[in-house]
Amino acid sequence: MQHYFLQQHLQLGMELVLPSEIRKHWIQVLRAKSGSSAEFVDNNQQVYLGKLINPVTGLIAITASKNFQAELPVQVTIACGVPKSGKAEFIVQKATELGATKIVFLPMEWSVARWQGKSEKKLLRLQKIAQGAAEQSHRNVIPTVMYTSGLPALNNLQAWDEKLVSYEEAAKQHEHQQLAKTLARTPVQSRIVALFGPEGGISPAEIAQLAALDFWPMGLGPRILRAETAPLYFLSAVSAFYELKC
Amino acid sequence: MQHYFLQQHLQLGMELVLPSEIRKHWIQVLRAKSGSSAEFVDNNQQVYLGKLINPVTGLIAITASKNFQAELPVQVTIACGVPKSGKAEFIVQKATELGATKIVFLPMEWSVARWQGKSEKKLLRLQKIAQGAAEQSHRNVIPTVMYTSGLPALNNLQAWDEKLVSYEEAAKQHEHQQLAKTLARTPVQSRIVALFGPEGGISPAEIAQLAALDFWPMGLGPRILRAETAPLYFLSAVSAFYELKC
Repeated sequence: MQHYFLQQHLQLGMELVLPSEIRKHWIQVLRAKSGSSAEFVDNNQQVYLGKLINPVTGLIAITASKNFQAELPVQVTIACGVPKSGKAEFIVQKATELGATKIVFLPMEWSVARWQGKSEKKLLRLQKIAQGAAEQSHRNVIPTVMYTSGLPALNNLQAWDEKLVSYEEAAKQHEHQQLAKTLARTPVQSRIVALFGPEGGISPAEIAQLAALDFWPMGLGPRILRAETAPLYFLSAVSAFYELKC
Repeated sequence: MQHYFLQQHLQLGMELVLPSEIRKHWIQVLRAKSGSSAEFVDNNQQVYLGKLINPVTGLIAITASKNFQAELPVQVTIACGVPKSGKAEFIVQKATELGATKIVFLPMEWSVARWQGKSEKKLLRLQKIAQGAAEQSHRNVIPTVMYTSGLPALNNLQAWDEKLVSYEEAAKQHEHQQLAKTLARTPVQSRIVALFGPEGGISPAEIAQLAALDFWPMGLGPRILRAETAPLYFLSAVSAFYELKC
Protein backbone atom coordinates (compact mmCIF):
# COMPACT_ATOMS: atom_id res chain seq x y z
CA MET A 1 0.00 0.00 0.00
CA GLN A 2 1.20 3.53 -0.83
CA HIS A 3 2.34 5.71 2.05
CA TYR A 4 2.34 9.52 1.86
CA PHE A 5 3.18 12.37 4.22
CA LEU A 6 0.75 15.28 4.72
CA GLN A 7 1.85 18.51 6.40
CA GLN A 8 -1.34 18.84 8.44
CA HIS A 9 -3.29 17.37 11.31
CA LEU A 10 -5.61 14.49 10.36
CA GLN A 11 -8.53 12.89 12.15
CA LEU A 12 -11.06 10.17 11.54
CA GLY A 13 -13.93 11.17 9.25
CA MET A 14 -12.07 14.20 7.87
CA GLU A 15 -12.21 14.91 4.12
CA LEU A 16 -9.47 16.80 2.33
CA VAL A 17 -8.03 17.48 -1.11
CA LEU A 18 -4.58 15.97 -1.65
CA PRO A 19 -1.69 18.28 -2.55
CA SER A 20 -0.80 18.21 -6.25
CA GLU A 21 2.39 16.19 -5.85
CA ILE A 22 0.57 13.28 -4.21
CA ARG A 23 -2.34 13.55 -6.66
CA LYS A 24 0.14 13.31 -9.51
CA HIS A 25 1.91 10.25 -8.12
CA TRP A 26 -1.02 8.29 -6.71
CA ILE A 27 -3.76 9.13 -9.20
CA GLN A 28 -1.92 9.88 -12.45
CA VAL A 29 1.15 7.60 -12.21
CA LEU A 30 -0.26 4.72 -10.13
CA ARG A 31 -3.84 5.18 -11.44
CA ALA A 32 -5.65 5.06 -8.10
CA LYS A 33 -9.43 4.87 -8.62
CA SER A 34 -12.43 5.90 -6.54
CA GLY A 35 -12.38 3.64 -3.50
CA SER A 36 -8.60 3.02 -3.59
CA SER A 37 -6.89 3.36 -0.22
CA ALA A 38 -3.47 4.60 0.87
CA GLU A 39 -1.71 5.42 4.14
CA PHE A 40 -1.37 9.09 5.08
CA VAL A 41 0.90 10.29 7.87
CA ASP A 42 -0.04 13.55 9.55
CA ASN A 43 2.23 16.14 11.14
CA ASN A 44 2.00 14.32 14.47
CA GLN A 45 3.54 11.16 12.94
CA GLN A 46 0.14 9.44 13.19
CA VAL A 47 -0.72 7.06 10.33
CA TYR A 48 -4.26 7.02 8.87
CA LEU A 49 -5.99 5.14 6.10
CA GLY A 50 -7.47 7.41 3.43
CA LYS A 51 -9.94 6.41 0.71
CA LEU A 52 -10.06 8.21 -2.63
CA ILE A 53 -13.48 9.73 -3.22
CA ASN A 54 -12.91 11.79 -6.35
CA PRO A 55 -9.92 11.07 -8.62
CA VAL A 56 -10.50 14.31 -10.53
CA THR A 57 -10.24 16.68 -7.57
CA GLY A 58 -8.12 14.39 -5.36
CA LEU A 59 -10.66 14.40 -2.53
CA ILE A 60 -10.05 11.72 0.11
CA ALA A 61 -11.81 10.68 3.30
CA ILE A 62 -9.88 9.52 6.36
CA THR A 63 -11.46 6.16 7.11
CA ALA A 64 -9.30 4.62 9.82
CA SER A 65 -6.46 5.32 12.20
CA LYS A 66 -3.52 2.89 12.09
CA ASN A 67 -1.59 2.33 15.27
CA PHE A 68 1.73 1.97 13.53
CA GLN A 69 5.15 2.97 14.84
CA ALA A 70 8.13 2.45 12.52
CA GLU A 71 10.56 4.82 14.24
CA LEU A 72 13.70 3.70 16.06
CA PRO A 73 13.26 3.99 19.85
CA VAL A 74 16.32 6.28 19.95
CA GLN A 75 16.84 9.38 17.81
CA VAL A 76 19.89 8.74 15.67
CA THR A 77 21.64 11.50 13.74
CA ILE A 78 24.06 10.32 11.07
CA ALA A 79 26.77 12.93 10.37
CA CYS A 80 29.00 12.40 7.34
CA GLY A 81 32.05 14.22 6.03
CA VAL A 82 31.04 15.51 2.58
CA PRO A 83 31.47 12.45 0.34
CA LYS A 84 32.21 12.07 -3.35
CA SER A 85 29.52 12.69 -5.94
CA GLY A 86 26.62 10.26 -5.78
CA LYS A 87 27.44 8.88 -2.35
CA ALA A 88 25.37 11.47 -0.46
CA GLU A 89 22.25 10.35 -2.33
CA PHE A 90 23.02 6.75 -1.44
CA ILE A 91 23.62 7.54 2.23
CA VAL A 92 20.38 9.56 2.51
CA GLN A 93 18.28 6.86 0.85
CA LYS A 94 19.66 3.99 2.91
CA ALA A 95 19.91 5.87 6.23
CA THR A 96 16.25 6.84 5.81
CA GLU A 97 15.24 3.22 5.20
CA LEU A 98 17.24 2.21 8.28
CA GLY A 99 15.62 4.74 10.61
CA ALA A 100 17.86 7.83 10.93
CA THR A 101 16.17 10.92 12.42
CA LYS A 102 18.59 13.45 10.92
CA ILE A 103 21.30 13.20 8.27
CA VAL A 104 23.93 15.92 8.46
CA PHE A 105 26.75 16.58 6.00
CA LEU A 106 29.77 18.66 6.95
CA PRO A 107 33.07 19.60 5.32
CA MET A 108 36.02 17.65 6.72
CA GLU A 109 39.75 17.99 6.16
CA TRP A 110 40.04 15.01 3.83
CA SER A 111 36.77 15.56 1.91
CA VAL A 112 37.46 15.70 -1.81
CA ALA A 113 34.15 17.35 -2.71
CA ARG A 114 33.16 20.80 -1.45
CA TRP A 115 29.57 21.96 -0.92
CA GLN A 116 30.40 25.48 0.20
CA GLY A 117 28.10 27.85 -1.71
CA LYS A 118 26.15 25.04 -3.40
CA SER A 119 24.61 23.26 -0.45
CA GLU A 120 21.07 24.62 -1.02
CA LYS A 121 20.52 22.86 -4.33
CA LYS A 122 22.05 19.66 -2.98
CA LEU A 123 19.91 19.74 0.17
CA LEU A 124 16.70 20.23 -1.80
CA ARG A 125 17.58 17.20 -3.88
CA LEU A 126 18.61 15.11 -0.87
CA GLN A 127 15.51 16.07 1.12
CA LYS A 128 13.43 14.82 -1.82
CA ILE A 129 15.31 11.51 -1.73
CA ALA A 130 14.68 11.25 2.01
CA GLN A 131 10.98 11.82 1.41
CA GLY A 132 10.81 9.11 -1.24
CA ALA A 133 12.69 6.64 0.96
CA ALA A 134 10.50 7.49 3.98
CA GLU A 135 7.39 6.80 1.89
CA GLN A 136 8.83 3.58 0.56
CA SER A 137 9.92 2.26 3.96
CA HIS A 138 6.68 3.39 5.66
CA ARG A 139 8.30 5.69 8.20
CA ASN A 140 6.29 7.94 10.56
CA VAL A 141 8.58 10.86 9.83
CA ILE A 142 10.78 12.17 7.03
CA PRO A 143 14.37 12.60 8.27
CA THR A 144 15.81 16.12 8.05
CA VAL A 145 18.83 16.48 5.77
CA MET A 146 21.22 19.31 6.75
CA TYR A 147 24.60 20.84 6.03
CA THR A 148 26.67 22.32 8.86
CA SER A 149 29.93 24.25 8.76
CA GLY A 150 32.08 21.79 10.71
CA LEU A 151 32.64 19.81 13.89
CA PRO A 152 31.87 22.59 16.44
CA ALA A 153 28.58 23.35 14.64
CA LEU A 154 27.70 19.63 14.64
CA ASN A 155 28.49 19.44 18.34
CA ASN A 156 26.24 22.44 19.05
CA LEU A 157 23.39 21.33 16.78
CA GLN A 158 21.46 20.02 19.76
CA ALA A 159 22.02 18.60 23.23
CA TRP A 160 23.33 15.12 22.40
CA ASP A 161 23.02 12.29 24.91
CA GLU A 162 25.72 10.21 23.21
CA LYS A 163 28.40 11.23 20.69
CA LEU A 164 30.28 8.61 18.69
CA VAL A 165 32.77 8.68 15.85
CA SER A 166 33.47 5.70 13.60
CA TYR A 167 37.25 5.48 13.41
CA GLU A 168 39.10 2.93 11.33
CA GLU A 169 42.25 3.22 13.44
CA ALA A 170 40.16 2.32 16.49
CA ALA A 171 39.00 -0.81 14.69
CA LYS A 172 42.58 -1.66 13.73
CA GLN A 173 43.54 -1.44 17.39
CA HIS A 174 40.76 -3.96 18.07
CA GLU A 175 38.35 -1.44 19.57
CA HIS A 176 35.13 -3.39 19.56
CA GLN A 177 33.39 -2.52 22.80
CA GLN A 178 32.39 1.13 22.43
CA LEU A 179 29.19 0.61 20.45
CA ALA A 180 27.91 -2.17 22.73
CA LYS A 181 28.84 -0.14 25.84
CA THR A 182 27.07 2.95 24.50
CA LEU A 183 23.91 1.12 23.49
CA ALA A 184 23.74 -0.71 26.82
CA ARG A 185 23.67 2.59 28.74
CA THR A 186 21.45 4.56 26.36
CA PRO A 187 17.75 4.66 27.29
CA VAL A 188 15.01 4.99 24.66
CA GLN A 189 14.29 8.51 23.41
CA SER A 190 17.98 9.44 23.73
CA ARG A 191 19.62 11.53 21.03
CA ILE A 192 22.68 9.83 19.58
CA VAL A 193 24.97 11.39 16.99
CA ALA A 194 27.40 9.20 15.05
CA LEU A 195 30.05 10.79 12.83
CA PHE A 196 31.55 9.10 9.77
CA GLY A 197 34.53 10.43 7.82
CA PRO A 198 34.65 10.96 4.05
CA GLU A 199 36.40 8.49 1.70
CA GLY A 200 39.83 9.77 2.76
CA GLY A 201 39.09 9.15 6.42
CA ILE A 202 39.37 11.40 9.48
CA SER A 203 42.56 13.43 10.04
CA PRO A 204 44.54 13.17 13.30
CA ALA A 205 43.74 16.85 14.02
CA GLU A 206 40.02 16.13 13.65
CA ILE A 207 40.26 13.09 15.92
CA ALA A 208 41.92 15.27 18.57
CA GLN A 209 39.20 17.90 18.14
CA LEU A 210 36.50 15.23 18.41
CA ALA A 211 38.08 13.82 21.58
CA ALA A 212 37.96 17.33 23.08
CA LEU A 213 34.27 17.50 22.15
CA ASP A 214 33.68 14.15 23.92
CA PHE A 215 33.00 12.04 20.82
CA TRP A 216 33.89 8.40 21.61
CA PRO A 217 35.79 6.50 18.90
CA MET A 218 34.11 3.23 17.96
CA GLY A 219 35.19 0.31 15.79
CA LEU A 220 32.63 -1.40 13.56
CA GLY A 221 34.28 -4.80 13.24
CA PRO A 222 37.52 -5.99 11.66
CA ARG A 223 36.67 -5.33 8.01
CA ILE A 224 37.40 -1.93 6.47
CA LEU A 225 34.04 -0.43 5.49
CA ARG A 226 33.64 2.16 2.76
CA ALA A 227 32.58 5.65 3.85
CA GLU A 228 29.01 5.03 2.69
CA THR A 229 28.72 1.53 4.21
CA ALA A 230 29.72 2.37 7.80
CA PRO A 231 26.59 4.46 8.62
CA LEU A 232 24.37 1.63 7.34
CA TYR A 233 26.20 -0.89 9.53
CA PHE A 234 25.75 1.44 12.50
CA LEU A 235 22.02 2.00 11.95
CA SER A 236 21.41 -1.72 11.40
CA ALA A 237 23.26 -2.57 14.61
CA VAL A 238 21.24 0.04 16.55
CA SER A 239 17.98 -1.34 15.14
CA ALA A 240 18.94 -4.96 15.87
CA PHE A 241 19.86 -3.99 19.43
CA TYR A 242 16.70 -2.05 20.28
CA GLU A 243 14.09 -3.53 17.94
CA LEU A 244 15.13 -7.19 17.64
CA LYS A 245 16.85 -7.43 21.05
CA CYS A 246 19.90 -9.03 19.42
CA MET B 1 48.02 -0.36 2.39
CA GLN B 2 47.00 -2.38 -0.68
CA HIS B 3 45.67 -5.88 -0.09
CA TYR B 4 45.83 -8.61 -2.77
CA PHE B 5 44.85 -12.27 -3.00
CA LEU B 6 47.34 -14.85 -4.34
CA GLN B 7 46.21 -18.33 -5.37
CA GLN B 8 49.20 -20.05 -3.78
CA HIS B 9 50.81 -20.94 -0.50
CA LEU B 10 53.12 -18.25 0.94
CA GLN B 11 55.80 -18.34 3.61
CA LEU B 12 58.28 -16.01 5.19
CA GLY B 13 61.40 -15.35 3.09
CA MET B 14 59.76 -16.59 -0.12
CA GLU B 15 60.27 -14.64 -3.35
CA LEU B 16 57.78 -14.75 -6.19
CA VAL B 17 56.70 -12.93 -9.32
CA LEU B 18 53.27 -11.32 -9.04
CA PRO B 19 50.53 -12.32 -11.50
CA SER B 20 50.00 -9.78 -14.27
CA GLU B 21 46.72 -8.42 -12.92
CA ILE B 22 48.27 -7.41 -9.59
CA ARG B 23 51.42 -6.07 -11.32
CA LYS B 24 49.20 -3.92 -13.49
CA HIS B 25 47.20 -2.51 -10.60
CA TRP B 26 49.90 -2.09 -7.98
CA ILE B 27 52.90 -1.14 -10.13
CA GLN B 28 51.39 0.51 -13.20
CA VAL B 29 48.25 2.16 -11.80
CA LEU B 30 49.36 2.87 -8.22
CA ARG B 31 53.07 3.29 -9.15
CA ALA B 32 54.53 1.08 -6.43
CA LYS B 33 58.35 1.43 -6.34
CA SER B 34 61.18 -0.84 -5.19
CA GLY B 35 60.78 -1.18 -1.45
CA SER B 36 56.98 -0.52 -1.46
CA SER B 37 54.98 -2.97 0.64
CA ALA B 38 51.52 -4.49 0.30
CA GLU B 39 49.51 -7.21 2.00
CA PHE B 40 49.18 -10.55 0.24
CA VAL B 41 46.71 -13.23 1.29
CA ASP B 42 47.61 -16.81 0.44
CA ASN B 43 45.31 -19.71 -0.32
CA ASN B 44 45.17 -20.57 3.39
CA GLN B 45 43.66 -17.16 4.22
CA GLN B 46 46.95 -16.16 5.86
CA VAL B 47 48.00 -12.51 5.41
CA TYR B 48 51.66 -11.64 4.68
CA LEU B 49 53.58 -8.46 4.05
CA GLY B 50 55.37 -8.43 0.69
CA LYS B 51 58.03 -5.96 -0.43
CA LEU B 52 58.52 -5.07 -4.07
CA ILE B 53 62.04 -5.93 -5.21
CA ASN B 54 61.83 -5.37 -8.96
CA PRO B 55 59.03 -3.22 -10.42
CA VAL B 56 59.91 -4.37 -13.95
CA THR B 57 59.44 -8.10 -13.37
CA GLY B 58 57.08 -7.78 -10.39
CA LEU B 59 59.35 -9.77 -8.07
CA ILE B 60 58.37 -9.51 -4.40
CA ALA B 61 59.80 -10.93 -1.18
CA ILE B 62 57.57 -12.04 1.68
CA THR B 63 58.95 -10.09 4.63
CA ALA B 64 56.50 -10.67 7.46
CA SER B 65 53.48 -12.67 8.49
CA LYS B 66 50.48 -10.70 9.73
CA ASN B 67 48.26 -12.34 12.29
CA PHE B 68 45.09 -10.77 10.95
CA GLN B 69 41.60 -12.24 10.94
CA ALA B 70 38.82 -10.20 9.31
CA GLU B 71 36.32 -13.02 8.77
CA LEU B 72 33.00 -13.30 10.58
CA PRO B 73 33.10 -16.06 13.22
CA VAL B 74 30.12 -17.71 11.50
CA GLN B 75 29.89 -18.59 7.81
CA VAL B 76 27.03 -16.56 6.37
CA THR B 77 25.57 -17.29 2.95
CA ILE B 78 23.36 -14.54 1.53
CA ALA B 79 20.82 -15.93 -0.97
CA CYS B 80 18.86 -13.42 -3.07
CA GLY B 81 16.02 -13.79 -5.54
CA VAL B 82 17.40 -12.50 -8.85
CA PRO B 83 17.07 -8.70 -8.51
CA LYS B 84 16.66 -5.95 -11.06
CA SER B 85 19.58 -4.80 -13.15
CA GLY B 86 22.38 -3.19 -11.15
CA LYS B 87 21.19 -4.41 -7.77
CA ALA B 88 23.17 -7.68 -7.90
CA GLU B 89 26.42 -5.70 -8.25
CA PHE B 90 25.45 -3.58 -5.27
CA ILE B 91 24.53 -6.60 -3.13
CA VAL B 92 27.79 -8.40 -3.97
CA GLN B 93 29.96 -5.36 -3.20
CA LYS B 94 28.29 -4.53 0.11
CA ALA B 95 27.79 -8.14 1.28
CA THR B 96 31.51 -8.72 0.67
CA GLU B 97 32.44 -5.66 2.73
CA LEU B 98 30.14 -6.88 5.48
CA GLY B 99 31.62 -10.36 5.66
CA ALA B 100 29.47 -12.81 3.64
CA THR B 101 31.12 -16.15 2.85
CA LYS B 102 28.93 -16.95 -0.16
CA ILE B 103 26.47 -14.91 -2.19
CA VAL B 104 23.92 -16.97 -4.10
CA PHE B 105 21.37 -15.73 -6.63
CA LEU B 106 18.36 -17.79 -7.60
CA PRO B 107 15.25 -17.30 -9.73
CA MET B 108 12.13 -16.67 -7.67
CA GLU B 109 8.50 -16.43 -8.65
CA TRP B 110 8.29 -12.66 -8.44
CA SER B 111 11.75 -11.90 -9.92
CA VAL B 112 11.41 -9.49 -12.83
CA ALA B 113 14.84 -10.24 -14.28
CA ARG B 114 15.84 -13.70 -15.56
CA TRP B 115 19.40 -15.03 -15.61
CA GLN B 116 18.59 -18.37 -17.21
CA GLY B 117 21.16 -18.93 -19.96
CA LYS B 118 23.15 -15.79 -19.19
CA SER B 119 24.35 -16.50 -15.68
CA GLU B 120 27.97 -17.25 -16.70
CA LYS B 121 28.76 -13.76 -17.91
CA LYS B 122 27.01 -12.22 -14.91
CA LEU B 123 28.83 -14.44 -12.44
CA LEU B 124 32.23 -13.62 -13.93
CA ARG B 125 31.46 -9.94 -13.54
CA LEU B 126 30.06 -10.34 -10.01
CA GLN B 127 32.99 -12.50 -8.89
CA LYS B 128 35.31 -9.69 -10.05
CA ILE B 129 33.31 -7.20 -7.95
CA ALA B 130 33.57 -9.53 -4.94
CA GLN B 131 37.34 -9.69 -5.43
CA GLY B 132 37.68 -5.90 -5.56
CA ALA B 133 35.50 -5.45 -2.48
CA ALA B 134 37.43 -8.19 -0.60
CA GLU B 135 40.71 -6.41 -1.40
CA GLN B 136 39.28 -3.05 -0.37
CA SER B 137 37.82 -4.30 2.91
CA HIS B 138 40.93 -6.40 3.72
CA ARG B 139 39.16 -9.75 3.93
CA ASN B 140 41.03 -13.05 4.36
CA VAL B 141 38.92 -14.67 1.67
CA ILE B 142 37.03 -13.69 -1.48
CA PRO B 143 33.35 -14.71 -1.18
CA THR B 144 32.06 -17.12 -3.80
CA VAL B 145 29.28 -15.79 -6.02
CA MET B 146 26.91 -18.46 -7.38
CA TYR B 147 23.66 -18.99 -9.26
CA THR B 148 21.38 -21.90 -8.34
CA SER B 149 18.23 -23.16 -10.00
CA GLY B 150 15.82 -22.56 -7.11
CA LEU B 151 14.90 -23.18 -3.49
CA PRO B 152 15.54 -26.97 -3.39
CA ALA B 153 19.00 -26.43 -4.91
CA LEU B 154 19.74 -23.71 -2.37
CA ASN B 155 18.61 -26.02 0.42
CA ASN B 156 20.91 -28.79 -0.83
CA LEU B 157 23.90 -26.56 -1.51
CA GLN B 158 25.52 -27.63 1.75
CA ALA B 159 24.58 -28.87 5.21
CA TRP B 160 23.22 -25.68 6.79
CA ASP B 161 23.20 -25.26 10.56
CA GLU B 162 20.59 -22.48 10.44
CA LYS B 163 18.19 -21.47 7.66
CA LEU B 164 16.41 -18.12 7.74
CA VAL B 165 14.20 -16.19 5.37
CA SER B 166 13.62 -12.46 5.62
CA TYR B 167 9.87 -12.02 5.27
CA GLU B 168 8.12 -8.68 5.25
CA GLU B 169 4.81 -10.20 6.32
CA ALA B 170 6.58 -11.63 9.37
CA ALA B 171 7.78 -8.15 10.23
CA LYS B 172 4.28 -6.74 9.76
CA GLN B 173 3.00 -9.34 12.22
CA HIS B 174 5.60 -8.00 14.66
CA GLU B 175 7.94 -10.97 14.32
CA HIS B 176 11.09 -9.59 15.90
CA GLN B 177 12.56 -12.45 17.89
CA GLN B 178 13.73 -14.97 15.29
CA LEU B 179 17.08 -13.38 14.46
CA ALA B 180 18.04 -12.86 18.12
CA LYS B 181 16.90 -16.41 18.99
CA THR B 182 18.87 -17.88 16.10
CA LEU B 183 22.07 -15.97 16.86
CA ALA B 184 21.87 -16.83 20.56
CA ARG B 185 21.86 -20.56 19.79
CA THR B 186 24.38 -20.52 16.93
CA PRO B 187 27.98 -21.34 17.88
CA VAL B 188 30.96 -19.94 15.96
CA GLN B 189 31.89 -21.74 12.74
CA SER B 190 28.23 -22.52 12.06
CA ARG B 191 26.92 -22.24 8.51
CA ILE B 192 23.94 -19.88 8.28
CA VAL B 193 21.95 -19.24 5.12
CA ALA B 194 19.64 -16.23 4.91
CA LEU B 195 17.26 -15.84 1.97
CA PHE B 196 15.99 -12.49 0.69
CA GLY B 197 13.26 -12.07 -1.91
CA PRO B 198 13.50 -9.97 -5.07
CA GLU B 199 11.90 -6.49 -5.32
CA GLY B 200 8.43 -8.04 -5.71
CA GLY B 201 8.80 -10.04 -2.52
CA ILE B 202 8.31 -13.74 -1.78
CA SER B 203 5.17 -15.51 -2.99
CA PRO B 204 2.89 -17.43 -0.60
CA ALA B 205 3.76 -20.67 -2.45
CA GLU B 206 7.46 -20.03 -1.90
CA ILE B 207 6.89 -19.26 1.79
CA ALA B 208 5.08 -22.61 2.13
CA GLN B 209 7.93 -24.36 0.31
CA LEU B 210 10.49 -22.65 2.55
CA ALA B 211 8.58 -23.67 5.68
CA ALA B 212 8.69 -27.28 4.47
CA LEU B 213 12.46 -26.91 4.00
CA ASP B 214 12.78 -25.61 7.60
CA PHE B 215 13.63 -22.02 6.78
CA TRP B 216 12.55 -19.78 9.70
CA PRO B 217 10.84 -16.50 8.79
CA MET B 218 12.48 -13.50 10.44
CA GLY B 219 11.51 -9.84 10.68
CA LEU B 220 14.20 -7.17 10.40
CA GLY B 221 12.49 -4.35 12.25
CA PRO B 222 9.35 -2.30 11.59
CA ARG B 223 10.55 -0.39 8.52
CA ILE B 224 10.09 -1.87 5.05
CA LEU B 225 13.58 -2.47 3.63
CA ARG B 226 14.31 -2.60 -0.08
CA ALA B 227 15.41 -5.95 -1.49
CA GLU B 228 19.05 -4.83 -1.62
CA THR B 229 19.07 -3.27 1.86
CA ALA B 230 17.77 -6.24 3.86
CA PRO B 231 20.87 -8.45 3.38
CA LEU B 232 23.11 -5.58 4.53
CA TYR B 233 21.00 -5.09 7.66
CA PHE B 234 21.24 -8.82 8.33
CA LEU B 235 25.04 -9.01 7.90
CA SER B 236 25.56 -5.87 10.03
CA ALA B 237 23.39 -7.32 12.79
CA VAL B 238 25.32 -10.62 12.68
CA SER B 239 28.65 -8.78 12.86
CA ALA B 240 27.49 -6.53 15.72
CA PHE B 241 26.28 -9.59 17.62
CA TYR B 242 29.43 -11.71 17.26
CA GLU B 243 32.18 -9.15 16.74
CA LEU B 244 31.04 -6.19 18.85
CA LYS B 245 29.02 -8.21 21.40
CA CYS B 246 26.08 -5.83 20.98
